[in-house]
Amino acid sequence: MKDLRIAILGAGRIGSMHAELLHQRTEGATVAAVHDIVPAAARSIGDRLGIPVAGSPRDVFEDSSIDAVAICTSTDTHIDLVIESARAGKAIFCEKPLSLDLAEVDRGLEAVEAAGIYLQVGFNRRFDPSHQAVRDAVVSGEVGEVHLVRITSRDPEPPPIPYVKVSGGIFLDMTIHDFDMARFVTGSEVVEVYAKGDVLVDPGIGAAGDLDTAVVLLTHENRAITTIDNSRRAVYGYDQRVEAFGSDGVASSGNPLVTTTVVRGSGGGRTPTLPYFFLDRYIPSYLAEWRVFVDGVRAGKPSPVGAADGRAPLVIGLAAWKSVREGRPVRTAEIG
Amino acid sequence: MKDLRIAILGAGRIGSMHAELLHQRTEGATVAAVHDIVPAAARSIGDRLGIPVAGSPRDVFEDSSIDAVAICTSTDTHIDLVIESARAGKAIFCEKPLSLDLAEVDRGLEAVEAAGIYLQVGFNRRFDPSHQAVRDAVVSGEVGEVHLVRITSRDPEPPPIPYVKVSGGIFLDMTIHDFDMARFVTGSEVVEVYAKGDVLVDPGIGAAGDLDTAVVLLTHENRAITTIDNSRRAVYGYDQRVEAFGSDGVASSGNPLVTTTVVRGSGGGRTPTLPYFFLDRYIPSYLAEWRVFVDGVRAGKPSPVGAADGRAPLVIGLAAWKSVREGRPVRTAEIG
Amino acid sequence: MKDLRIAILGAGRIGSMHAELLHQRTEGATVAAVHDIVPAAARSIGDRLGIPVAGSPRDVFEDSSIDAVAICTSTDTHIDLVIESARAGKAIFCEKPLSLDLAEVDRGLEAVEAAGIYLQVGFNRRFDPSHQAVRDAVVSGEVGEVHLVRITSRDPEPPPIPYVKVSGGIFLDMTIHDFDMARFVTGSEVVEVYAKGDVLVDPGIGAAGDLDTAVVLLTHENRAITTIDNSRRAVYGYDQRVEAFGSDGVASSGNPLVTTTVVRGSGGGRTPTLPYFFLDRYIPSYLAEWRVFVDGVRAGKPSPVGAADGRAPLVIGLAAWKSVREGRPVRTAEIG
Amino acid sequence: MKDLRIAILGAGRIGSMHAELLHQRTEGATVAAVHDIVPAAARSIGDRLGIPVAGSPRDVFEDSSIDAVAICTSTDTHIDLVIESARAGKAIFCEKPLSLDLAEVDRGLEAVEAAGIYLQVGFNRRFDPSHQAVRDAVVSGEVGEVHLVRITSRDPEPPPIPYVKVSGGIFLDMTIHDFDMARFVTGSEVVEVYAKGDVLVDPGIGAAGDLDTAVVLLTHENRAITTIDNSRRAVYGYDQRVEAFGSDGVASSGNPLVTTTVVRGSGGGRTPTLPYFFLDRYIPSYLAEWRVFVDGVRAGKPSPVGAADGRAPLVIGLAAWKSVREGRPVRTAEIG
Repeated sequence: MKDLRIAILGAGRIGSMHAELLHQRTEGATVAAVHDIVPAAARSIGDRLGIPVAGSPRDVFEDSSIDAVAICTSTDTHIDLVIESARAGKAIFCEKPLSLDLAEVDRGLEAVEAAGIYLQVGFNRRFDPSHQAVRDAVVSGEVGEVHLVRITSRDPEPPPIPYVKVSGGIFLDMTIHDFDMARFVTGSEVVEVYAKGDVLVDPGIGAAGDLDTAVVLLTHENRAITTIDNSRRAVYGYDQRVEAFGSDGVASSGNPLVTTTVVRGSGGGRTPTLPYFFLDRYIPSYLAEWRVFVDGVRAGKPSPVGAADGRAPLVIGLAAWKSVREGRPVRTAEIG
Repeated sequence: MKDLRIAILGAGRIGSMHAELLHQRTEGATVAAVHDIVPAAARSIGDRLGIPVAGSPRDVFEDSSIDAVAICTSTDTHIDLVIESARAGKAIFCEKPLSLDLAEVDRGLEAVEAAGIYLQVGFNRRFDPSHQAVRDAVVSGEVGEVHLVRITSRDPEPPPIPYVKVSGGIFLDMTIHDFDMARFVTGSEVVEVYAKGDVLVDPGIGAAGDLDTAVVLLTHENRAITTIDNSRRAVYGYDQRVEAFGSDGVASSGNPLVTTTVVRGSGGGRTPTLPYFFLDRYIPSYLAEWRVFVDGVRAGKPSPVGAADGRAPLVIGLAAWKSVREGRPVRTAEIG
Repeated sequence: MKDLRIAILGAGRIGSMHAELLHQRTEGATVAAVHDIVPAAARSIGDRLGIPVAGSPRDVFEDSSIDAVAICTSTDTHIDLVIESARAGKAIFCEKPLSLDLAEVDRGLEAVEAAGIYLQVGFNRRFDPSHQAVRDAVVSGEVGEVHLVRITSRDPEPPPIPYVKVSGGIFLDMTIHDFDMARFVTGSEVVEVYAKGDVLVDPGIGAAGDLDTAVVLLTHENRAITTIDNSRRAVYGYDQRVEAFGSDGVASSGNPLVTTTVVRGSGGGRTPTLPYFFLDRYIPSYLAEWRVFVDGVRAGKPSPVGAADGRAPLVIGLAAWKSVREGRPVRTAEIG
Repeated sequence: MKDLRIAILGAGRIGSMHAELLHQRTEGATVAAVHDIVPAAARSIGDRLGIPVAGSPRDVFEDSSIDAVAICTSTDTHIDLVIESARAGKAIFCEKPLSLDLAEVDRGLEAVEAAGIYLQVGFNRRFDPSHQAVRDAVVSGEVGEVHLVRITSRDPEPPPIPYVKVSGGIFLDMTIHDFDMARFVTGSEVVEVYAKGDVLVDPGIGAAGDLDTAVVLLTHENRAITTIDNSRRAVYGYDQRVEAFGSDGVASSGNPLVTTTVVRGSGGGRTPTLPYFFLDRYIPSYLAEWRVFVDGVRAGKPSPVGAADGRAPLVIGLAAWKSVREGRPVRTAEIG
């Protein structure tokens, strides 16, 4: 079977990672072009992997040999690129969040639907084998009817303040992954959101209008209740756990450790550190995400992380912000 | 040193357990009398352990050879017994909750204060070595400033409906332990409560006006945020975990398993069950609780779980009920 | 049902422990008398528990109200006491090893058999729930045909040198538990022994003619191969693990930790210590051992740790010593 | 810095894996040619990765643009290729074992020494981060003086019988990794070997003159004692554990699991499987092995797994076979 030819738009940290995983480690995929508004960034990854650099996104859209695009640019450019890609008939992978603006998202999703194009949103954690096994235990019925979900999601260090300022804030930048996970694990939409947060890590984050510590409580359509806790700084590493508790049992994913080695002395035991951040923890999930994308586009299968999955977490995130501002639970129906 | 002579008031499940632990396994303690409004209950434990049965609580209060009482009767009788014990000059151990009524609690605590009597409330989980080690890691500064606390507290099966009806409901009967734990681990009072609950386990519990599944979010004076999740039925056993996350690290107590044995076959591993319920899990904490009581009374030390520790969780519990009823966060200052 | 009345012979560390566990924590058992050649030792435990002190073993044997004896004296006195107990018609619990001399053991076992008396040897580890679960996985067939057994058995600190000198050495004093465990887990007799040892912990142990570090390889009748490793000093605590590997799987018991609490900081995790020694680890096994003894004697059931189980580990231990001395594998048939 | 250009000799399972890891995932390395005596095998991997196929090993040796060779052919051809590579001035990576014949090994090592060439033997497990952490805890002094080492090394399934016949048997094919690990972890040579084995997995292995279940006891120069146990069939996956016990503590590497997810129901917990075999478990160690090779050759550093490390495990393996045949401990000095 012919390789799927994919163009990477945006050659920052995440775009470069995707280029490498796709080009070198994904059977059936070729990165056919890379573009970045900073030409040197595109050249750097292009040179390293032997990938042509595109002069503009338009060159990509007009290149009929290109089957798909991976949109890894800054969030505010996502929707326009989604729309142009859809019009050009390219299958789309788009990093999260689709946008910080719900109307924008809807504009993008309309174009995707109109074009009948494959769209996969970059919620990579769904493809982490450990979180997936939690979901599997729900889907198989082993956990029974889900009553409670707990998601712990803590970064090792905050992003730079300039990034914080354009990120949409903790709920749209960071917790959005957890909102997706809550929907994924329960298989049920969120109807109400109560959020509480504070600035306990870095006053600069507060000055930028954001929070660095947060707890969110979600009520699902099926009456399951999810609690999420976030911190921008877990000094012990990237803490990522999901637990689904139900009428027949409980399934929990834990944190891997960097080795399995335990050292014991007279004072107790010493265990390894956690992976430091997402590049150390989630590479297998990114590879699996690409496997699904490449297979899905080539076989004409529906996307497992499509338009609705791109939209719903944004609604939840906007409701979380409203809840914090107004100090009350907010129905997602109030948002859109 | 002379043994501390303690009378047990209330010879139900918990009173009988305390009688046995005190009389047989607590150095320096003798159970001098046991009483129950059902005489056969008192006789049964009295005969088994060779302890005299008291004809009435008054007999106990008037017996100058008795140093202390352990109040293990039904909740609605606690305060009167506390007051009479205080007036009789007996040191007091009282099971939780002190009362379901805050005015009653205050009446009792006044009498205790007036008498200058030692009072220890039965929040045994503080003495569990694993939860205590979480608190120790906070107190020692190892965790740094506490930002987030997570408490998972799930029973293996609901209590009988008649008990549910007089229990004060899930927040005053079950979560009250977790409210105490949140204060214990953070060392900080609770200023705001948001609670959410549902009836997902047994409709009979709902019919009795109670919840069987709940999530509570507490905001502390020191800005730490605690999340608690409860279920009345965890089919896999008694799930009791506490985690304190802070600026310098995280400390977490897990569930012990009934053995350490793992069996692996071609389909994966098989691990043991959790302890089924509190009698299987918390005996060491009850023994430690008595050790502290006996040593404290004999040495004239202040109680580590005194009047304020008996009162505060009740306030939080009442705030939780108000929060559920009114669908909004409730300040503890609104309660009392 | 009438309580089983048991006399404790030998009120040292282990005898005192048994007295307390039997008298206070074993339903259906009463310690009717305690004796020690040091009268103060007997009085001390007798006073503490309210147990009469016997003037001599003979008083015990002649007291028809006494049903059973627990022989907890020094090893060299075991067999004479076993024989006298048997002749007096008392059920016998005898600490391990029965003797350091095989002819003596045989003399004792003959008397037991002649009297048709219940004899239970103190191999308490068989009753540890975790090791028992390993054995259960073998008996149930879950592990399949057993091919390899690994036993790790390390003490936290060596015994005093005077004790070492009369102990029979590491193989008869310490490894003898592991020889029993190997037979228990495999359900198969040992036919060949290869042992290797050294003095790496304390030269005083070498000066006393003993080893402090040893590895023993056992070949069973059913062709399973067991490896045992021992050290007299594991600074991190009492390390006791058993693993049975077979055609269909593996079952392994691990070490419990003193709490379940893990603390994580930027340098990795910190886990609790192991229980320090047998009193910290094996109390549940001693309680279970007594439960089985009391029930077995009262119900006239055969002993699960009888004469053959007392004899076989001694044969293996003597073979281990011969193997070390002669630098070759030794058949147990060479010993007796 | 210029890429190191490496030719792969032997394009079987392990050669193909090395080609891919080197070419695609090792910074600074290019696979410049691949050769196999079965041309189609070389072409298959060459086509997949875009690597030229060499017509003969001689072409490789004569190509001055090639810096190094990776010898992944059948064991009986290793030494001739080592010698030719050395004479051609190519740095050498050679899979284990160097040969089944000690005289052959010596012939090869002489040529390497004469040429002053970098030689690295494929003992990849040294580069596994978990086993390495055990070694680190020894080297750092955390474990103190090493007294006991335990190595568990069990394959999920036996190799095909034709392979068994030319493999040198279990000790030279499989346990040889563990012999290397024992030397690596202790930092001490082996002076005596006692081995015991049986055919418990597959009678065909016995018919081929080999064993499928074995235990080996090694005595080191520094008096540490290592026990190794092997099975050719662990139905639960690839079981690889190393433990170093010493005067100040213990360090143990365990098995990773394929996910971190635990599912609990009323009957207990369910944990994931182990990685199935070396391709699932040891890829990070192979990558680290290549990192070290590429850096070492480019920087002119001494090999961390050189000639002595290729020879010693063979001597131990030959001693193990002699021990099994003669039923006695064998000094490595008896072998060579």
